[in-house]
Amino acid sequence: MRLASFMRGLWLAAGLVSATLGGSAARAEDGYDLWLRYRPLPAAQRPEPRTIAPGADTPTLKIARAELQRGLGGLVGGAPSPDSPSILLGTPAGSPAVAALNLPLKGAGDEGYLIRTVGKTTVIAGNSDIGVLYGVFHYLRLVQTGQGVDTLDILSAPKVKHRLLNHWDNLNGSVERGYAGASLWDWWKLPDYKDPRYVDYARANASIGINGAVLNNVNAKADSLTAPYIAKAAALAEVFRPYGIKVYLSARFSAPIEIGGLKTADPLDPAVRAFWKAKADEIYKAIPDFGGFLVKANSEGQPGPQDYGRTHVDGANMLADAVGPHGGIVMWRAFVYSHEQPDDRAKQGYGEFKPFDGQFRDNVIVQVKNGAIDFQPREPFHPLFGAMPKTNLGMEFQITKEYLGFATHLVYLGPLYEETLKSDTYAKGQGSTVAKVVDGTLDGRSQTLMAGVANIGRDRNWSGSQFDQANWYVFGRLAWDPEASTKDIAADWARMTFSTDPRFVQPAVAMMMGSREAAVDYMTPLGLHHQMGRSHHYGPGPWVSGGERADWTSVYYAKAGKDGIGFDRTAAGSNAVAQYAPVVAQRFSDLKTVDEKDLLWFHHLPWTYRLRSGQTLWDGLVTHYSRGVSYVDGMGRTWADLAPYVDPERHAQVADFLAIQRNEAQWWRDASIAYFQTFSGLPLPAGEAAPPHSLDYYESLSFPYAPGI
Amino acid sequence: MRLASFMRGLWLAAGLVSATLGGSAARAEDGYDLWLRYRPLPAAQRPEPRTIAPGADTPTLKIARAELQRGLGGLVGGAPSPDSPSILLGTPAGSPAVAALNLPLKGAGDEGYLIRTVGKTTVIAGNSDIGVLYGVFHYLRLVQTGQGVDTLDILSAPKVKHRLLNHWDNLNGSVERGYAGASLWDWWKLPDYKDPRYVDYARANASIGINGAVLNNVNAKADSLTAPYIAKAAALAEVFRPYGIKVYLSARFSAPIEIGGLKTADPLDPAVRAFWKAKADEIYKAIPDFGGFLVKANSEGQPGPQDYGRTHVDGANMLADAVGPHGGIVMWRAFVYSHEQPDDRAKQGYGEFKPFDGQFRDNVIVQVKNGAIDFQPREPFHPLFGAMPKTNLGMEFQITKEYLGFATHLVYLGPLYEETLKSDTYAKGQGSTVAKVVDGTLDGRSQTLMAGVANIGRDRNWSGSQFDQANWYVFGRLAWDPEASTKDIAADWARMTFSTDPRFVQPAVAMMMGSREAAVDYMTPLGLHHQMGRSHHYGPGPWVSGGERADWTSVYYAKAGKDGIGFDRTAAGSNAVAQYAPVVAQRFSDLKTVDEKDLLWFHHLPWTYRLRSGQTLWDGLVTHYSRGVSYVDGMGRTWADLAPYVDPERHAQVADFLAIQRNEAQWWRDASIAYFQTFSGLPLPAGEAAPPHSLDYYESLSFPYAPGI
Repeated sequence: MRLASFMRGLWLAAGLVSATLGGSAARAEDGYDLWLRYRPLPAAQRPEPRTIAPGADTPTLKIARAELQRGLGGLVGGAPSPDSPSILLGTPAGSPAVAALNLPLKGAGDEGYLIRTVGKTTVIAGNSDIGVLYGVFHYLRLVQTGQGVDTLDILSAPKVKHRLLNHWDNLNGSVERGYAGASLWDWWKLPDYKDPRYVDYARANASIGINGAVLNNVNAKADSLTAPYIAKAAALAEVFRPYGIKVYLSARFSAPIEIGGLKTADPLDPAVRAFWKAKADEIYKAIPDFGGFLVKANSEGQPGPQDYGRTHVDGANMLADAVGPHGGIVMWRAFVYSHEQPDDRAKQGYGEFKPFDGQFRDNVIVQVKNGAIDFQPREPFHPLFGAMPKTNLGMEFQITKEYLGFATHLVYLGPLYEETLKSDTYAKGQGSTVAKVVDGTLDGRSQTLMAGVANIGRDRNWSGSQFDQANWYVFGRLAWDPEASTKDIAADWARMTFSTDPRFVQPAVAMMMGSREAAVDYMTPLGLHHQMGRSHHYGPGPWVSGGERADWTSVYYAKAGKDGIGFDRTAAGSNAVAQYAPVVAQRFSDLKTVDEKDLLWFHHLPWTYRLRSGQTLWDGLVTHYSRGVSYVDGMGRTWADLAPYVDPERHAQVADFLAIQRNEAQWWRDASIAYFQTFSGLPLPAGEAAPPHSLDYYESLSFPYAPGI
Repeated sequence: MRLASFMRGLWLAAGLVSATLGGSAARAEDGYDLWLRYRPLPAAQRPEPRTIAPGADTPTLKIARAELQRGLGGLVGGAPSPDSPSILLGTPAGSPAVAALNLPLKGAGDEGYLIRTVGKTTVIAGNSDIGVLYGVFHYLRLVQTGQGVDTLDILSAPKVKHRLLNHWDNLNGSVERGYAGASLWDWWKLPDYKDPRYVDYARANASIGINGAVLNNVNAKADSLTAPYIAKAAALAEVFRPYGIKVYLSARFSAPIEIGGLKTADPLDPAVRAFWKAKADEIYKAIPDFGGFLVKANSEGQPGPQDYGRTHVDGANMLADAVGPHGGIVMWRAFVYSHEQPDDRAKQGYGEFKPFDGQFRDNVIVQVKNGAIDFQPREPFHPLFGAMPKTNLGMEFQITKEYLGFATHLVYLGPLYEETLKSDTYAKGQGSTVAKVVDGTLDGRSQTLMAGVANIGRDRNWSGSQFDQANWYVFGRLAWDPEASTKDIAADWARMTFSTDPRFVQPAVAMMMGSREAAVDYMTPLGLHHQMGRSHHYGPGPWVSGGERADWTSVYYAKAGKDGIGFDRTAAGSNAVAQYAPVVAQRFSDLKTVDEKDLLWFHHLPWTYRLRSGQTLWDGLVTHYSRGVSYVDGMGRTWADLAPYVDPERHAQVADFLAIQRNEAQWWRDASIAYFQTFSGLPLPAGEAAPPHSLDYYESLSFPYAPGI
């Protein structure tokens, strides 16, 4: 019949479409796999299949072999033949075959590994099972990034002992300064239900050497120390244990009152000390390898020892004595400021802690933010680094982008971390870098720590955006080796996450490497800082003033006026420079030597001040803002060109986010110029467009539902 | 060498494992696919491949063809041959081939479809593109459930016009009474970024005939009516449009004051009326097919017309006049109670609305909850059904399990919905079922509505658990046909979601069908209601008393005392029964005729009252509590036996949740018995175990971080 014949003509096209769609539905990518994608390599980069030797069946080595099989199965595929090369993994203690090789494993230490080709066998060995697992991930990275694995001889050991993520996750499922959805911890269903995703979280961390997680917000609730929540933490610890990850808890200093029935939390009160001892014993009973406590005390309204006329040393040591017998540590944050506001908040951390150098217990680590203010797009290194040689000092970086555009701005933080770590404190002469303070070599300390405020949530892509995964990744790699190149790390990440094609890798890495300077340019160039919107820190807010405390406002930091702009921290001003070694203080103080990137951090200068470029300060400011916007434009163009190398789903999301970043960069530039021009009273440099809206308009914008608070 | 030969021996096993793992990693299931899994059918159930005719390329028909290709590609696979049967889809208006068949499409109406086999061609036709899409989903359901598709002649049209999900989603990303993670709407990134998941949400709804979504919480913020949020809603509307889904907004009655700069929200004030007219025009400019407003007024502290001495009619009609010219509707909730507390809250909705019958505009629908209290495990049907023949009455069911154990209790709500819809109001004599009120046939009304409070969030499995997906599914199917069998629907869902194997389907459906009665048994048997924990409604709280209002406490509803238990709603008591048709009131009032399932809803009876079983009321209560616990035990055993038919990931999650439900059912039983025994003073029936803890213990439990509030 007519209809039938009409139909006959169509079978081919339709049939093809049908086949296509059926397949593609399954292949859609959303970023969940992170840098452990294990997609088939281009034939040219594919090594031959390998057999994997069985061995000791400890939980961690089982995982190591399974990961190797999963990785090679995906990247290389195919089944090995009797003549295929092989992989042997294990510890001398657990594997006779490994022991028989008498490998030089001393340098691998407790967590390191040796990867060596012996004949047709690649040996991945460590002194501990976790060292072997780290070695397996290193080996897979070599395969995944298309590097040869035929002849290997690699010895690697972490330079920092405690490589931790700090989760600012609340018990109600929200995440302070989180831009990647709800907390990954389903506290409500724990301990009875363990989301399989916890395993993938542990895998991802183990793949970059992270060995600890503080589960709850530093602005802590005492409830997290009650029996039900200890059981929940124990359930997570059980999942994480074979991946070498210890759990830690943020401890609320006033817990003895809130859940202990005491009238005080005075660290010198015997009942209080007994409470913490008993609490530590209770926790270690449930979590034998519990890592210890992180404490934010006497800061931003949190309780602390000063409430009882005691010191940070009294508080920290009291907790250290509680967890010490179990091998636990206390991380005591140096990010403090009391209700009495000093002339310069940048000076307070140093002022409060420096005098206590040498008085903290050996299992106390003072956790210091990279800069003295608060995770700004750029800050000079914190003056405490190098200033407390007789104290364990740990680094606290922020991975989540509280001040850097949240999830939708592409800002690779590697260069920010590297800039801080490479900074020279001159504490013991030239070469006394922050990295050497953090890895303990400068002062011969072994309780070393690098902590990162996590950017992880329940969003499918983990970090809120595809490129924010790189910030989690680079943090882990730097915690393992604070002197590593963040450009090389970006290249590894780009190859593992997207494509090993050099036509993708080179431009993508270049884009990433410049992205942080671009953010500095469109947000807070030339040393400006803390100019963001009030409390949510979203978008420009240079006009923010008044309110609870002066040092929570933008005007406090920019000090813009008819006479000029900038915070004078030289001897003529707050003299914050005096907290640095003399040579450093000198460099910061002298307009001839200070890096112009830090100019307005240390100096208050007239609008007509001449920059080294010859431009006036005002013209230079405007130029920097615009340069930041143009860079984001360029990232948009670059990313469009990279479409052939990226699956459509992830490419589209990144492209959409770059468009948002472009608009917001422009908004930053325009609002900042509109505001500061009311002081400079100067025209814009030639070719610079005036802000499209009035200052009133920019000031009128409000964001009552901004995420992260 | 020794090592090499040691290795040679191992290649086979390792090779095999490697192959296995490489594959399985990709196949892990998490429930994201819902009932649209499209996995390959068993060969015996697989129809031969079919060609799909091209046709009009409207957005909706493109989607229809793509869905057909995706579904058949996954379920059937293979490419069709020139002799394969074919599928023709379209409308007579858009497809000459369809028009040529002169199909009897009158009965399909605006949204229905005809599926008919004509020779070797299956025609899926409708009067509208969306009708065709609905037909495609019906056709795929037949394939997916293993039913033959060789000879079809199916005509189907929805019996209810507005089939809506009500999302109680807040602008900050939280969801009131939500147990499936954060809001699906990423308000923060909208409109610039549209999560691809919005498409899957629309697909899933279209597959069950849902044609509207109220995006924001009925406890609404005026911000949702501001320009930025209208733009966000418009972005979602754009995604939903080709799937036949209109967006609606909950409107805050006081918006004229909060965002309109007015001093009043008085519905008779000209400025207020002008505000709403202008606001409606603004919304329709951005969303031409905007559905209308949902309003919760003068209820639980929400503002409303009564604040100005006006009536619900004044308020609803004013908004109806604003959206009417654009074809919009107003859904005005009957769930109201003023601050003056009546003798019986169950009577208030009827008391406030019944007098206004016939006074609401034609585009106003009064939205009535299934029962007079609040989404309890069991309630008699709401007395307003059948009582307002001259008013559009819509049904509001709750899909999210606020009072039914949140996400971790397996409770299939089909029987609850069916029980209400089949209830006979006797408004126009026998057969005047609630279903006939809702579908408009009883009173010849065309503005019909069935609304379901969504259980959807950003959890990977959408609804917080695998089986809660069935509640979303059954709601949609019932909205299409309120007289459908929820057992048949459960069977469709089980086949599509898990397996078509009868050895799975039969026990799984049996388990589902009894699960709601089990929850009634272990929570609130024999007509008890509202005995849950205060405000979060989690777990038992029969002792809840005091606080803001008596009718927010448990003791108000159970009225337990030495003399007995139950709420006397007969003429001797609150006389709520008088709100029903005489024959119904008579049945409820008479202990000989009242269904014992509703016994304590209508009667206050002594502990020694004899149930029809011969047991005393006290013994019967205890027996019911225990029966509920045993049923959950049985579900655990059944589910364990079904492991062979379910992927390990989803099987494990369901098993873990069933274990949680088992513990909580026991807790409900024990705590309720411990509390009520203090009044009955009677021993437990023989063989019944005493509660393991004291009443003090059960009363001491607190849950400060319960989800959903």
